[in-house]
Amino acid sequence: MGGDHGPSVVVPAAVRALATLPESVSFLLHGDEATITAALAHHKGAAGRIEIRHAERVIAMDEKPAQALRRGKGTSMWNTVEAVREGQATAAVSAGNTGALWTISRLILRMVGDLERPALVTTMPTLKGVTTFLDVGANVDCDAERLVEFAIMGEAFHRAAHGKAKPTVGLLNVGSEDMKGHEEVREAHRILREGKLPIDYKGFVEGDDITKGVVDVVVTDGFTGNVALKSMEGALRFITTELRSALSGGVLANVGAILARPALRRFRDRLSPPPAAPLLGLNGIVVKCHGGATERDFAQSIQVAVDLARSDFAAEIERNMRRLPAALAEAPAADPAVDEAATQGAQE
Amino acid sequence: MGGDHGPSVVVPAAVRALATLPESVSFLLHGDEATITAALAHHKGAAGRIEIRHAERVIAMDEKPAQALRRGKGTSMWNTVEAVREGQATAAVSAGNTGALWTISRLILRMVGDLERPALVTTMPTLKGVTTFLDVGANVDCDAERLVEFAIMGEAFHRAAHGKAKPTVGLLNVGSEDMKGHEEVREAHRILREGKLPIDYKGFVEGDDITKGVVDVVVTDGFTGNVALKSMEGALRFITTELRSALSGGVLANVGAILARPALRRFRDRLSPPPAAPLLGLNGIVVKCHGGATERDFAQSIQVAVDLARSDFAAEIERNMRRLPAALAEAPAADPAVDEAATQGAQE
Repeated sequence: MGGDHGPSVVVPAAVRALATLPESVSFLLHGDEATITAALAHHKGAAGRIEIRHAERVIAMDEKPAQALRRGKGTSMWNTVEAVREGQATAAVSAGNTGALWTISRLILRMVGDLERPALVTTMPTLKGVTTFLDVGANVDCDAERLVEFAIMGEAFHRAAHGKAKPTVGLLNVGSEDMKGHEEVREAHRILREGKLPIDYKGFVEGDDITKGVVDVVVTDGFTGNVALKSMEGALRFITTELRSALSGGVLANVGAILARPALRRFRDRLSPPPAAPLLGLNGIVVKCHGGATERDFAQSIQVAVDLARSDFAAEIERNMRRLPAALAEAPAADPAVDEAATQGAQE
Repeated sequence: MGGDHGPSVVVPAAVRALATLPESVSFLLHGDEATITAALAHHKGAAGRIEIRHAERVIAMDEKPAQALRRGKGTSMWNTVEAVREGQATAAVSAGNTGALWTISRLILRMVGDLERPALVTTMPTLKGVTTFLDVGANVDCDAERLVEFAIMGEAFHRAAHGKAKPTVGLLNVGSEDMKGHEEVREAHRILREGKLPIDYKGFVEGDDITKGVVDVVVTDGFTGNVALKSMEGALRFITTELRSALSGGVLANVGAILARPALRRFRDRLSPPPAAPLLGLNGIVVKCHGGATERDFAQSIQVAVDLARSDFAAEIERNMRRLPAALAEAPAADPAVDEAATQGAQE
């Protein structure tokens, strides 16, 4: 029922996804039975693999998370997540209210191990392919251990979602030397380097390395990640606007712009953010599809959920989380001399 | 002597700057006398306004700041900054080693008030004009008071460099509500809002507001600022590369690209970062010009230094710094309930 378009997008997206997914995949559609039945009327063929679960109520797109939590029980979103907890579904996909989905998922599914909050992860296009980037806003204050948890979750996610056997991982910092950055990031660096976790950790990366594609997974705290992501989105919007005005600056430029239009359209497609963002660290798979999703976007989010469900993703995260205490013990304590040098700041 | 090209760029840049600067402006050129004299040979007219100060030694572009500090005395960079301290010069401009300039300036000129380190400030092109953005890397750990100091310095700089009588100021955060973000940023927000500093403070801004030009001055800690700046630079490079490949994807697109070329060149010019970055918070004006500077870039950096020198910039910073203790007392203490809510993170 969620997203800007509700069942008119979600139902045909589910039908579209079924066409390419293995026979073993089927859907529970939670929401208003009459509306969903009507939307399904045109797709008789899919009936055997789609089951409707009626829900009386819906969480509004602008509802505050706290309110969604109070009155959430029995809504389509609540039931969707609860079906995962009860083992009726392997993964949940929603285009509904992000804050509500985050809060309800955390309450119903609970976090893996000592994790406190689901991380928001995004997939960035890069010069070499795609990079997984997290946390982009859920966890504003992060100690070293939290950053290492993000590395564990991001690595497992990248393997499951992008099919790379051994993704490389980098920690976002203001320079590449060991002594750069604040204490949390240097401590996480030590744990990842010395802690013998089965992760291909490449060390510190800088802001411009995200789009260079230097590593497969870029890890940072939710404050820095959110600011970096939005800064890049802003830069993109700025450039698109400037480009449009540069290309309308005269007759020749105009003709040029018209001729270049198809190429520019492909360019824009390549830059548009992927529609699906999983909530990482939950005991269960929850994929958030953006609210303005088209049929194609929602079908793609379903595909991400299926990829995660068919991978060893959750078990890998749990296994590596169990190794974390040993990794923490393994990593040598901070060297005060290095700490002192680091307080000199980034003087590049 | 600094930068990738040394006197072959700096000397003609100084001559070029003299042509547009008032008669009262003159230069001390610190460095190897023979080299500078040779470079000046083609510019007889400028001789009366340029004085050569011979320096035996030069700080290398790849020298570590600590080493530069130890063996810096008597180098052209050291003498340039010392001339400011001694009142022989009003401002210093260098295209040399950034870390060395930062460290030497801090040692020789010392910081204003209780400031600990010079802030690195950059000027971003925006949809509305330009935005001053700081700190972009010098101060990795920042408490609330440091962030307020950046606001004071950035505001005075923006007025001096960009001629706006009352620049607006925003604090970078992951959302615009009071309860968003970590403790330091929320405390700085309270001080700027309630502390009665003579600053037009507009509240929190987000990453994409930098290039939107929502405020004239965007304030953040050196870690976040460095990551955001480099992320935007990376996004720009990514987009330029993608665009080039999109525009070479076929005969029509190619013709389009050729016709659009002058417009695209103007676009690239608009996006190239400004060559001059002042070190803010020193008892004296020091402007860093980027190492790869052209003659035009260095002349522009000289212009920035002159603008700062002719403004009330330093006195304004000092006045507002003196008001800071009262502002800190004025701002009410943090509300624990709000703190609690904030730990829920950015769940947008």
